Amino acid sequence: MLVHHDQLEVRTHRKGLCEITDQIEPKIDKCGVQNGTVTVFVQHTSCSIVIMENADPTAQRDLEKFFDRLVPENADYFTHDAEGGDDMPSHIRTVLTRTSETIPIMDGKMQLGTWQGVFLFEHRRAPHRRKVLITTIGE
Amino acid sequence: MLVHHDQLEVRTHRKGLCEITDQIEPKIDKCGVQNGTVTVFVQHTSCSIVIMENADPTAQRDLEKFFDRLVPENADYFTHDAEGGDDMPSHIRTVLTRTSETIPIMDGKMQLGTWQGVFLFEHRRAPHRRKVLITTIGE
Amino acid sequence: MLVHHDQLEVRTHRKGLCEITDQIEPKIDKCGVQNGTVTVFVQHTSCSIVIMENADPTAQRDLEKFFDRLVPENADYFTHDAEGGDDMPSHIRTVLTRTSETIPIMDGKMQLGTWQGVFLFEHRRAPHRRKVLITTIGE
Repeated sequence: MLVHHDQLEVRTHRKGLCEITDQIEPKIDKCGVQNGTVTVFVQHTSCSIVIMENADPTAQRDLEKFFDRLVPENADYFTHDAEGGDDMPSHIRTVLTRTSETIPIMDGKMQLGTWQGVFLFEHRRAPHRRKVLITTIGE
Repeated sequence: MLVHHDQLEVRTHRKGLCEITDQIEPKIDKCGVQNGTVTVFVQHTSCSIVIMENADPTAQRDLEKFFDRLVPENADYFTHDAEGGDDMPSHIRTVLTRTSETIPIMDGKMQLGTWQGVFLFEHRRAPHRRKVLITTIGE
Repeated sequence: MLVHHDQLEVRTHRKGLCEITDQIEPKIDKCGVQNGTVTVFVQHTSCSIVIMENADPTAQRDLEKFFDRLVPENADYFTHDAEGGDDMPSHIRTVLTRTSETIPIMDGKMQLGTWQGVFLFEHRRAPHRRKVLITTIGE
């Protein structure tokens, strides 16, 4: 059995989706796992890892608009605002989405569907460096 | 170690929950894994895999009604509507729920709780054929 | 390869977040996996497992308030209310969050970020005993 850990640093510059599929694929090539799974895990509570439609940028922008409406900044009932109006909404968005995705690997390749991409979903306005762990298990 | 991939095709005919627990169990019997995990992964961005109460159909209908209110079709701020009013909401519902579930296997059986079932949650109105990958890892 | 299952019973007394990170860590020490993953899975459909900010209790309280607004009890369009006004909302909150989290293990330790904690998110008002399975796979 093979177990392999690798790491990505993703630099974000604004709230919204940032596709990282192309950065994960070479890590899987390198690890040597032909059949198994990869877990993509982000070590933060103010951004998410999600699988989303990656063909049409308007779908990504509409998703971002929806989340801005669902979890508005500066809601008057938030008390946790030490880091600004996007602080508490960022934690809520993370809980409403995902901290990790686990994806099958067959014949050395992630088995994403035709329109699926893996994204880091940034919930903070200011630039951040995000640590993403990539763990492959298989043979 | 055993790594095994299998596949389901799920035909859906309307928006809503479609239980697939009974279709996953024989795949686990066949793969020979006695202790480990199974990852159930859907290769689409307009339907989800979720674990939900499977005893009372009214709970499933209420869940569907809630999602119709939370992510309404034809919202006037959506621009991604090439495939109709249920197009963009389907991607948002997927991000709000899950693309996969990972479930422990002990003694050759999925360790679901008494009331837990695995469902494909279809977000499109038209009939679709959905590809679900079932990856077991263990011994 | 090592595959190890363990179990926690978490007693809850109210709706809200209950951190269980400290109860998971000794299970990982005991199982002997140095590199791999741990899957934390709850066997119920009316509470969730989530990773959330664990430093500031006000962030946890704000999250709870948000969910009480997003999925209100006693909504007049719910028909599944056999166990009370918090019955149907509990299933919806579970589908909106997560039934499990999968976390990398390196050098025998869960690789949570600085501010990440693993929580059981209870959605029912009455006291409950919740069964959580902890499955480690690795070497």
